[in-house]
Amino acid sequence: MADVQKRVEAALERALPPAEHEPQRLHRAMRYAVLGSGKRVRPLLAFAAGEVAHSPFERLDAVACAVELIHAYSLIHDDLPCMDDDVLRRGKPTVHVEFDQATALLAGDSLQSLAFEVLAAGRSAEEPATEIEMLHTLARASGTRGMAGGQAIDLAAIGIPLTLPELEFMHILKTGALIRASVVLGARCGRTLGASEFGKLDRYAKCIGLAFQVVDDILDAASPTATLGKTAGKDAVQGKPTYVSTLGLARARERAQELRRDAHAALESFGAEAARLRDLADFIVLREF
Amino acid sequence: MADVQKRVEAALERALPPAEHEPQRLHRAMRYAVLGSGKRVRPLLAFAAGEVAHSPFERLDAVACAVELIHAYSLIHDDLPCMDDDVLRRGKPTVHVEFDQATALLAGDSLQSLAFEVLAAGRSAEEPATEIEMLHTLARASGTRGMAGGQAIDLAAIGIPLTLPELEFMHILKTGALIRASVVLGARCGRTLGASEFGKLDRYAKCIGLAFQVVDDILDAASPTATLGKTAGKDAVQGKPTYVSTLGLARARERAQELRRDAHAALESFGAEAARLRDLADFIVLREF
Repeated sequence: MADVQKRVEAALERALPPAEHEPQRLHRAMRYAVLGSGKRVRPLLAFAAGEVAHSPFERLDAVACAVELIHAYSLIHDDLPCMDDDVLRRGKPTVHVEFDQATALLAGDSLQSLAFEVLAAGRSAEEPATEIEMLHTLARASGTRGMAGGQAIDLAAIGIPLTLPELEFMHILKTGALIRASVVLGARCGRTLGASEFGKLDRYAKCIGLAFQVVDDILDAASPTATLGKTAGKDAVQGKPTYVSTLGLARARERAQELRRDAHAALESFGAEAARLRDLADFIVLREF
Repeated sequence: MADVQKRVEAALERALPPAEHEPQRLHRAMRYAVLGSGKRVRPLLAFAAGEVAHSPFERLDAVACAVELIHAYSLIHDDLPCMDDDVLRRGKPTVHVEFDQATALLAGDSLQSLAFEVLAAGRSAEEPATEIEMLHTLARASGTRGMAGGQAIDLAAIGIPLTLPELEFMHILKTGALIRASVVLGARCGRTLGASEFGKLDRYAKCIGLAFQVVDDILDAASPTATLGKTAGKDAVQGKPTYVSTLGLARARERAQELRRDAHAALESFGAEAARLRDLADFIVLREF
């Protein structure tokens, strides 16, 4: 895991515009937001799924950068005053606090463009037609039927209690779509998998996408800000529906474990090539214990 | 021109998520920003360049939607309070005024994703490898070496007098990059053009990209808000460097005409198939007289 994180850091470093190029402030803000921190969960998932499909590392670099850039852009915009209005992220001041709101807005916008630029430049699959499908997958996972749509539903739900299915629908879009895309894209850049193998990977990705969010909600409710690297307890203060507010802490923990088991079950027919995916399911769920 | 505008309106209508689908408020904001108004200069340029390369209309639809969606996203974000803080656009309240800032932010973000989704789904060229290059072109034109970079330089220049070369560099990025991409992409989805033909189209695009901005600056300085559909005289109030503040009104008008002549000269070796591109050069420059 540390090797992949290092590799991805180097790839991101190469993909981002140099800080000394004009417009410098914008480039500095983009680098500040992306480099040097972050668990790189989505790149790790792309690399782990890549192992199942024997995807070459060079192609995985492009995929990993693309999904991480989309994720980083979403964090910058989510933290803006008109959204979650947060001042702390990954243990540092958020981008609009360290720079300014206009720069944060443009940095997020530019990271989104860069994600597609990197993926389009990356020779990320054997066949160009597959590459186009991958670009389409990333775009769809980022838009209103994915991450941005989930964020909109989340905003609309402030102060409104959601049922568990409503909450899960929101998270399947908000966090789940990009996590699924990370797994799918990592697998797509290798040998062609059968529909059944793909279906299993997708089921795995859906489970860990939800598990990731359940654990995030638990951590937000149960951890101090210093451990978390972002403002803790924020969801409750903002009246946001979470797994903890909907299920209670104990049942939310059970749900995370349940999803971990489902994720493992989805990988049953795979052998050692799925070992990293299994490890990641454990890592995502167990990080909170 | 009216036919193309109608065709593009229909294609945008199909490309945008239906207003009654969740998240409805977000989808309504996206449709509000894109549909029903706008001169569609970039789609018109894509279609006109497509005529030079005999590009099929169905492919041009995808290209035209993609560039217009990027343009629309940039307008929403530019109008936000942390940027230009404007309340009027295309004769209507801006998106954050009609909806709210968070929705405007997400609508812009989602329109950018949708642009890439539409282009990746559009079978926009004969060869998939060409399609990937086109996606790369669009991403690059949108990012820090294009539109967003120009916007950042523009923001940094508030209250600072720029030299003409500095001003032109800013506009080559801010408006020029996407206008050039519109021409290039329109031509790319047809028959393969030679490097020399491409070079000429690119020179044309560069000239009209600048001309477009010169005329925008003249209109901002010289028109009433009602004619303009957006707040007039804003550049001067905000202390933004413009062609008018740098060159004066008379010299700015000369510069626009000069660029129109250069644009025509770039097309000299083309025949009737470039008639629409010539018309557009005239339209872009003469709209102010």
